[in-house]
Amino acid sequence: MNYLDQIASPTLLIDEKITRANLKKMADKAQKLGKKLVPHWKTSQSRTVGNWAKDYGIREVTASSISLAEYLCGQGWDSIHIAFPFNIREIPRLNRLAANQTISVQVVNAATAKALAEGLREEVSFFVELDAGYGRTGIQASDEAELEEILTQAGRSQHLKFKGFYIHPGHTYYGKNTSKIHEESQEALALRKAKYLDRYPNLVTRLGDTPGCAVMEDFGAVDELGPGNFVFFDLMQVHLGSCKREDIAVCLAVPVVDIRKDRKEILIHGGGVHLAKDVLMQPDGTKNFGEVVLVTEKGWSIPSHYSFVKSISQEHGIIQASEELLNSVKVGDLLGILPVHSCMTADAMGSYLSLNGQEIDHAEGLR
Amino acid sequence: MNYLDQIASPTLLIDEKITRANLKKMADKAQKLGKKLVPHWKTSQSRTVGNWAKDYGIREVTASSISLAEYLCGQGWDSIHIAFPFNIREIPRLNRLAANQTISVQVVNAATAKALAEGLREEVSFFVELDAGYGRTGIQASDEAELEEILTQAGRSQHLKFKGFYIHPGHTYYGKNTSKIHEESQEALALRKAKYLDRYPNLVTRLGDTPGCAVMEDFGAVDELGPGNFVFFDLMQVHLGSCKREDIAVCLAVPVVDIRKDRKEILIHGGGVHLAKDVLMQPDGTKNFGEVVLVTEKGWSIPSHYSFVKSISQEHGIIQASEELLNSVKVGDLLGILPVHSCMTADAMGSYLSLNGQEIDHAEGLR
Repeated sequence: MNYLDQIASPTLLIDEKITRANLKKMADKAQKLGKKLVPHWKTSQSRTVGNWAKDYGIREVTASSISLAEYLCGQGWDSIHIAFPFNIREIPRLNRLAANQTISVQVVNAATAKALAEGLREEVSFFVELDAGYGRTGIQASDEAELEEILTQAGRSQHLKFKGFYIHPGHTYYGKNTSKIHEESQEALALRKAKYLDRYPNLVTRLGDTPGCAVMEDFGAVDELGPGNFVFFDLMQVHLGSCKREDIAVCLAVPVVDIRKDRKEILIHGGGVHLAKDVLMQPDGTKNFGEVVLVTEKGWSIPSHYSFVKSISQEHGIIQASEELLNSVKVGDLLGILPVHSCMTADAMGSYLSLNGQEIDHAEGLR
Repeated sequence: MNYLDQIASPTLLIDEKITRANLKKMADKAQKLGKKLVPHWKTSQSRTVGNWAKDYGIREVTASSISLAEYLCGQGWDSIHIAFPFNIREIPRLNRLAANQTISVQVVNAATAKALAEGLREEVSFFVELDAGYGRTGIQASDEAELEEILTQAGRSQHLKFKGFYIHPGHTYYGKNTSKIHEESQEALALRKAKYLDRYPNLVTRLGDTPGCAVMEDFGAVDELGPGNFVFFDLMQVHLGSCKREDIAVCLAVPVVDIRKDRKEILIHGGGVHLAKDVLMQPDGTKNFGEVVLVTEKGWSIPSHYSFVKSISQEHGIIQASEELLNSVKVGDLLGILPVHSCMTADAMGSYLSLNGQEIDHAEGLR
């Protein structure tokens, strides 16, 4: 009996070998460049995958929420960073967490620094997030007054320690000018570091996004790299040139429930609640919610003929199938779907099945 | 202390009064028209909300997956229907479930009927799903041979009972010609019923979609109505004309983490893992991932000024805020977001908070 016999319902497969290769490659690159790698753990959200990462010298991780940081607490991490503009309603939870785990948070305004300074009962350090220029989060480079006010507020507390500057250049996901974006981000971090290093001799700078960290070879004076998605990769990253399809480490196994040869369609049990609804637009204007691979006893293989999920509902998806696929599949078979956005698929599924039939943990929708 | 004081992190609020009003209105309509209402429970996925429904004479529900049917088993439902083209890899689970609960499934091809006939050890009835004409699921009206083969296969088993015909006219979600679509669906069901009633004197027909069931007043000879989303409604349904904003029964409470007056933006803790990523395109081409309401001690109120979530990432969203909202909100406040697609938001969140501070259950991401 192999792992495939265990699968009756949509199941997220994880290939440990590919995952470890992705971790090792990024760790080797960081080491070669003399940078500390602090991966963003929002992708796998897994303690087990965390243990794999430790084999490559990774000692710190980043969480996307306090819930995930709580889930990763007690797993031997030197430090966990919560890379989200801190939500001050969570200060009581932060105090409980920081009593047991070295923690840093992210601050983007003085109101948050003030509330933390007043409410913290345990030591917590913080990064100031700088706006990478695409206007999602972070303080703007021009807003010197806000930055000074954050540091002033923090200075009032013995518990709140300034750790450094953080930039997430997420606009590399738009697929243009990755190197120019990284240069600008590196420069913004270098300028801030130069200005504040005298006052804060231990401050560090951290920069992270998978497209940039995967393709760039020069990160200038930045101290730490914080990519996340590279652990699993996905079709979006293939599309951006960060990886090959063969580097994608997770795959949704889905049962075939109907076949319509006349329309070249295969109906699968696997929809929005499993894959999430991230989509790639294809050159011909059709939508791609995931690509079909063939599941095997050893994992999955990428077929030479192209089939993709062209639409999804809550529980099921419709595959636009190649002739080869149509002619080889029957009701009750399993197919594999490479996800467009692996972080969201893993979050939707809430657990993994390894290729030797073991369940691999995920924080499982903790909010 | 009111329920708002409990909220530190994104929390899905449920207004029991609105939910009950939605249930009552649809139940009254069905009763008036002499139809049996069998709501699709994929929206709330809640046992508690199920108990509310029973107060309005609702005795049967539909599940979107066998996991949800398992979750609802033992809650006193006369029957649970799994409205999904049956996945034959789940036959062992179906046998275990059917030992404890009256169950029906949905069949769209003879291969599935054959596998069920061979594998069932407990009585299970089935609907044949007819393609409503938009090509998602179901057998085509012209495919008489497949239908006959399904009935032949089923006839070989003492456990598998033909219950009737089911249509989900989901193309009413495209917002055009709801009444024409319903007429066609009603006619397709009536034709089939007329043809097979002699052979299967107890067969019933069921038709269900929220836009249709909300706005139509005539369902012809159809026996049963199966809408789902109406329990909560959402912005998509407002957009389709099925309800008013005031009828939406759930709202995501989100903490404010940053405010950018220069850009009229408010950054909230609440993103794709909370709201899901369903989106409405607005007339000016901008995207709407949810609309802002003001949370109050009694629930929420719809402001006269319009603010909406214009973009979302995994954990956070950016609100395009009205002047009034910008001037009245501060970091750490809570706002409410009416969801675009309440089924997906509820599925992403996995539980609710009532307005008197009680946690309300949800099947919670069971797959």
